[in-house]
Amino acid sequence: MSFRPAATVGMSLAEVDTPCLILDLDAFERNLQRLPGSLKGLPIKLRPHAKSHKCPEIAKRQIALGAVGVCCQKVSEAEAMVDGGIRDVLIANEVVGAAKLKRLAELAKRATIKVCVDDAGNVRDLDVAARAAGVTLDVLIEVDVGAHRCGVAPGAPVVEIARVIVGCANLRFAGLQAYQGTAQHVRKVADRRDAIKQAVDDVQQTQRLLKDAGIACDYVTGAGTGSYLFEATSSVYRELQAGSYIFMDADYARNEWTESGIPAFEHSLFVWTTVMSATMEGRAVVDAGLKASSVDSGMPRVADYADVEFLKASDEHGVLQYHGSTRFKVGDKLKLIPGHCDPTVNLYDWFVCVRGGVVEALWPITARGALL
Amino acid sequence: MSFRPAATVGMSLAEVDTPCLILDLDAFERNLQRLPGSLKGLPIKLRPHAKSHKCPEIAKRQIALGAVGVCCQKVSEAEAMVDGGIRDVLIANEVVGAAKLKRLAELAKRATIKVCVDDAGNVRDLDVAARAAGVTLDVLIEVDVGAHRCGVAPGAPVVEIARVIVGCANLRFAGLQAYQGTAQHVRKVADRRDAIKQAVDDVQQTQRLLKDAGIACDYVTGAGTGSYLFEATSSVYRELQAGSYIFMDADYARNEWTESGIPAFEHSLFVWTTVMSATMEGRAVVDAGLKASSVDSGMPRVADYADVEFLKASDEHGVLQYHGSTRFKVGDKLKLIPGHCDPTVNLYDWFVCVRGGVVEALWPITARGALL
Repeated sequence: MSFRPAATVGMSLAEVDTPCLILDLDAFERNLQRLPGSLKGLPIKLRPHAKSHKCPEIAKRQIALGAVGVCCQKVSEAEAMVDGGIRDVLIANEVVGAAKLKRLAELAKRATIKVCVDDAGNVRDLDVAARAAGVTLDVLIEVDVGAHRCGVAPGAPVVEIARVIVGCANLRFAGLQAYQGTAQHVRKVADRRDAIKQAVDDVQQTQRLLKDAGIACDYVTGAGTGSYLFEATSSVYRELQAGSYIFMDADYARNEWTESGIPAFEHSLFVWTTVMSATMEGRAVVDAGLKASSVDSGMPRVADYADVEFLKASDEHGVLQYHGSTRFKVGDKLKLIPGHCDPTVNLYDWFVCVRGGVVEALWPITARGALL
Repeated sequence: MSFRPAATVGMSLAEVDTPCLILDLDAFERNLQRLPGSLKGLPIKLRPHAKSHKCPEIAKRQIALGAVGVCCQKVSEAEAMVDGGIRDVLIANEVVGAAKLKRLAELAKRATIKVCVDDAGNVRDLDVAARAAGVTLDVLIEVDVGAHRCGVAPGAPVVEIARVIVGCANLRFAGLQAYQGTAQHVRKVADRRDAIKQAVDDVQQTQRLLKDAGIACDYVTGAGTGSYLFEATSSVYRELQAGSYIFMDADYARNEWTESGIPAFEHSLFVWTTVMSATMEGRAVVDAGLKASSVDSGMPRVADYADVEFLKASDEHGVLQYHGSTRFKVGDKLKLIPGHCDPTVNLYDWFVCVRGGVVEALWPITARGALL
């Protein structure tokens, strides 16, 4: 049930069918290098989140530039990565339910797998699944360092769950996940820095309590594209989970970056779309709507035309509003910058990789739809 | 690149993995019958829109209850329907670009195909593609009856394009599409009725001008779930395109329905989800986020628990807020009512069809991701 790609290798961009997902390889490769480049000399490793790209071809390129492996959110996403040749996956999320735990434990026979927990009952279920599969699983405790989503409160609650893990024959306590998710899209640099400072304090307090309890904990993972340099320079984090840096969507671009120290990542991911109707004064309609670009973080932006606004989306249509002299005609093609890259990538089966106006490769998004 | 289903036939709902798309067959079948039931005695045919379900199994059941065929929005969606055994498809949308027009013309050799236009240049491109394939294509003119998306203005502009169609050797002018899309989610019944009255006036005025120009036009198609009975009783429309009636999402449920004459459709489509974290006072986190339920028309609603609100979604997480005494624990499963059914269905490869708490069938969503 995967559809034919919108392009073939060697085709000019102008010939590529729409809507499809375009990856500008030059910009992508610069982003790919810029993040590890910004970490030179720091005692920190990169483990990019694969939930952004869902594509082993991209994961391999991240690892070739020094990444230690990838993060995934779902067992099925991790399976797709391992099937694609990735040997080291952190499931940066809780995994609940017997069916998933069985698959997780089986996957640990084929690759290095870590998983997060925030619930003692779930820890015991994990131990049962690991024993049944005959494996020992590395388990991280997720700490709520301010995002208020998953994770236990810092301090004593972490020690409590760590003791449960230590008491399980088929589990190994492997450290902490301390991801401050809500900080990533806070616009001001100072506010993002303050949020990470608080997260670091929370982690350090927790590490002290764990030490007092005789439980070693030197592995801490977290961070996203919006804040990663603050975690990287904290001396507390050991691995970074940033993922969106390779694409840089419209919402991340609305953050302030100056004086953050974080390099300027470029937009490399676009929705390629065709003007399908131009009957209205002041407007045009393109063939990319809600099923071609997720609007959860705002409408896509129109690339290359500052005077054209993507006004609204319905299922298969996007309405463009002219604010200047630009006018399109039916058949014109243009690029949209997605509002939010992760759920947009999840709508497609292929990256159409373009360099110098020519299709250089088609990369399958093999973890598209990996929900389980 | 299609993932294993979350269930097997015969499994109890409690065992079904999450997140997945559940179809409550009893509610679905009642909806399936209610719409044609409400049209008894009216000179109107139903051609439901398949963009809502993308599933030939559902299309076949609609046709078995009298539907004349289906509507699609994309050529690739129409191909998936024809491949699935559907013989009559209206592409209720403009199709632009040589690659798509070639496939459209080829498809017309295998099934009865109609397509919409609103641009004279596009009409000529269609004629070229039809001639190259050796077919004659049925072409409808889309009229903008108030939605201000695609379509030409009513009246003289329609006659102008109709003349271009009539002058094309491989095209046949087949009538008008007059879909008032924005009226569908207008909350008040009187406002929806007024919008359709205006659309009917626009169509009648246009038909008079076409008649004066010697161009016959007795086929008019349009309507959605929010308004279809007003089009059905107008004596102007010949076919109805309603699609969402089979599922009834949370956004449609916010419409007023009393005294519309439209029967009460039931929620039959749900996202089945698991509580994956319950560490916070007053909240729980489920494993269904932006990649499991489209939020373009608002957050999903929590089914069966009136005192629990789906507060916000991130990529793979949904945060529930308790407003009453309900409390969930990790591992509990519950149903969400999607905010908007069409883009939610497009996230999944399978409908898990449930009756009496048992999985009765798995229907593949073969047009999932049919963007071209």
